[in-house]
Amino acid sequence: MSTIVSVDTQDVRFPTSLHLDGSDAMNPDPDYSAAYVTVRTDSTDGLEGHAFVFTIGRGNDVQVAAIDALRGHFVGADVETLLSDMGGVHRALIRDSQLRWLGPEKGVMHMAIGAVVNALWDLRAKRAGQPLWQHLAGLSPEEIVSLVDFRYLTDALTPGEALQILRRAEPGRAERIADLTAVGYPAYTTSPGWLGYSDEKLDRLCRAAVADGFPLIKLKVGADVDDDVRRLRIARDAVGPDFPLAIDANQRWDVADAIRWVNTLAEFQLAWIEEPTSPDDILGHAAIAAAVAPVRVATGEHAQNRIIFKQLLQADGMQVMQIDASRVGGINENIANLLLAAKFDAPVCPHAGGVGLCEAVQHLSMFDYVAVSGTMDGRMIEYVDHLHEHFVTPTRVVGGRYQAPVAPGAGTEMWPASLDVYTWRGAHPSVTV
Amino acid sequence: MSTIVSVDTQDVRFPTSLHLDGSDAMNPDPDYSAAYVTVRTDSTDGLEGHAFVFTIGRGNDVQVAAIDALRGHFVGADVETLLSDMGGVHRALIRDSQLRWLGPEKGVMHMAIGAVVNALWDLRAKRAGQPLWQHLAGLSPEEIVSLVDFRYLTDALTPGEALQILRRAEPGRAERIADLTAVGYPAYTTSPGWLGYSDEKLDRLCRAAVADGFPLIKLKVGADVDDDVRRLRIARDAVGPDFPLAIDANQRWDVADAIRWVNTLAEFQLAWIEEPTSPDDILGHAAIAAAVAPVRVATGEHAQNRIIFKQLLQADGMQVMQIDASRVGGINENIANLLLAAKFDAPVCPHAGGVGLCEAVQHLSMFDYVAVSGTMDGRMIEYVDHLHEHFVTPTRVVGGRYQAPVAPGAGTEMWPASLDVYTWRGAHPSVTV
Repeated sequence: MSTIVSVDTQDVRFPTSLHLDGSDAMNPDPDYSAAYVTVRTDSTDGLEGHAFVFTIGRGNDVQVAAIDALRGHFVGADVETLLSDMGGVHRALIRDSQLRWLGPEKGVMHMAIGAVVNALWDLRAKRAGQPLWQHLAGLSPEEIVSLVDFRYLTDALTPGEALQILRRAEPGRAERIADLTAVGYPAYTTSPGWLGYSDEKLDRLCRAAVADGFPLIKLKVGADVDDDVRRLRIARDAVGPDFPLAIDANQRWDVADAIRWVNTLAEFQLAWIEEPTSPDDILGHAAIAAAVAPVRVATGEHAQNRIIFKQLLQADGMQVMQIDASRVGGINENIANLLLAAKFDAPVCPHAGGVGLCEAVQHLSMFDYVAVSGTMDGRMIEYVDHLHEHFVTPTRVVGGRYQAPVAPGAGTEMWPASLDVYTWRGAHPSVTV
Repeated sequence: MSTIVSVDTQDVRFPTSLHLDGSDAMNPDPDYSAAYVTVRTDSTDGLEGHAFVFTIGRGNDVQVAAIDALRGHFVGADVETLLSDMGGVHRALIRDSQLRWLGPEKGVMHMAIGAVVNALWDLRAKRAGQPLWQHLAGLSPEEIVSLVDFRYLTDALTPGEALQILRRAEPGRAERIADLTAVGYPAYTTSPGWLGYSDEKLDRLCRAAVADGFPLIKLKVGADVDDDVRRLRIARDAVGPDFPLAIDANQRWDVADAIRWVNTLAEFQLAWIEEPTSPDDILGHAAIAAAVAPVRVATGEHAQNRIIFKQLLQADGMQVMQIDASRVGGINENIANLLLAAKFDAPVCPHAGGVGLCEAVQHLSMFDYVAVSGTMDGRMIEYVDHLHEHFVTPTRVVGGRYQAPVAPGAGTEMWPASLDVYTWRGAHPSVTV
């Protein structure tokens, strides 16, 4: 028997805007940040749960306040009771009748719930002595189904259908675990394509990405169409005619703009157009997808919950699903998203980058491969080579592939020294020095 | 020339859960609350701007923190510059590249933007010496169009189309202002229909509502179908066969449940079914609307922004639009919503109740009547007789009609004594006494 003794938060911000890393058409000056949470218990094992919500600077304090508002649900609670009923914990938070008004199931409050849920998963995986992906992949189909809140999903996916999907993937789990451990999971890179980079840097980084073994490169677009044509030409020349190039507009366009702009870029034979318009616009995505085919529409990093993903799939507005580790209500809701993707046969290519998103989301893709979709075909995880050094168990990407984590936990624990140096005190350390 | 000297916030909570007023299938124990904001200037006129986000208790502190995060945008700014460009102020907040990540345009951060925008409108109307509805109705079509952010709307509504709508309503503005001043605007009542009330109280309040002149009564449903049949029978017996009765499920159902449940209640010839399912589920609303016709689907109090309203109209998932004064990004975004409704010829019947929502939203309906739709046909504003005594200029509903406000401002200023007594200090005053 052990008890949760504290749920502590920290407002952590990195001064990334000083270098234009991460700049795109909608986010010219992000300061990659984490509203970070640590769950501590009185157990003699000394294990802690760590997780965060990723933000891009201002407002990270609001996100921290939202996590703080959940503290009362946990401090003093029995650890074993909570960790043995993660479906119940998730549902109780999502359905808190007063907090629900602040969303429902979206924005700051929903992401806060996700962070706390994820911290408990980190703790649970550490107590089991397993990396999270493997811990989840060891659950029975019935246990996995019990983690999901099917409210508002049953017109597209019932618990019975979810069980069928999971049972279909049960044979071969051991082989796929061995496979993952041997060869890892495909990564793609966005590092060459930020808008703030020079043409020379774009060319150089594209060539380096191909040499490094990445199977796809993504470029930010949407600020100026002539610039986009020039930069795509540089990238296409650098990588050759058949190498997959994708583009990302970061919600810059209205529907008609998106269709016109993407079709203007048809010569570059793009693998996908990502976030062409508002992430809330199901019907807009469907209209765009129909008009720019065979270019596929990818979205999801700002999809607020499983209900949006459900509709994007129902309306054929999204051909590539890009889940994000810290946008929705935690690992439980992302399991719902993976099951929806499997039902609709859509490849999941998670959003990552930022702070710790690579570390977190790789576990979901690997769990998907072992226990849900059972395939890596057409799947890959975004990779950006920023800020990994602040994590206790950083991602390892070798030859364009994420290596399967072996350390216990969810990968979301930061070094105490990093937390200390980058805790926000009203100015960036590099500015105050 | 004057300057904004402070943007102060207060966490105000009323212990409404002690009386079961406001209980429904999803919100059994709301404590009606306001994350309240006061904008003060150094002008000798002594005028202040007041507004709030309505919440139902826990998390009101998070909502306050979000408003606090916007303070830096305003303190020290020139008042006349801000108030003369409310479209620019609104767009600058919505498009803040770092805060945007926390939504975008949804949840806690978006509602905080709405509160600050609304406080500035309150100040502007007070400085003009006009009630807000009349102040807005005195703007030219071009000025009104300049208030709206058309991003993500142009596939359904362009600025040119908005201008046409507003110009069409320009003749007759003076007559409609006179008409409003003489007869007011229709109200409907939800007071009889809370789930926590006894059958005897339901019967008594229904008869009283008819006698009071209300044109429609709404009942909460969705907890138990047999209870709903019994309560609707009591209500129908009380009001007679032809009186309009509507029902509200507060998002309780999945799509198939909603269709089955509403069709089970067909004998009661309902005016609308409100919030049958998740407010995010555009396609679900469309499926429900098609299956329960001629019962109309009403929704909007939790619609996070204009993009959701746009789609509900495009998909014919909503036949009655229920805007809310404090859910979206303020009066500017609600003007976008009114223009969308006019474009699609949907009646707007705003959500109200809570704390101060009646006081706030009446201005939008009256502005709509004078300058946008030009009609009250099929339109009415929800009315709940709670907590009006805390407002400096409370709504006046007489004979089932909102009387047109005459006091300058947006109606959203609370008495200092109420703010003081109900400021949250960790417990309700009635509990601690």
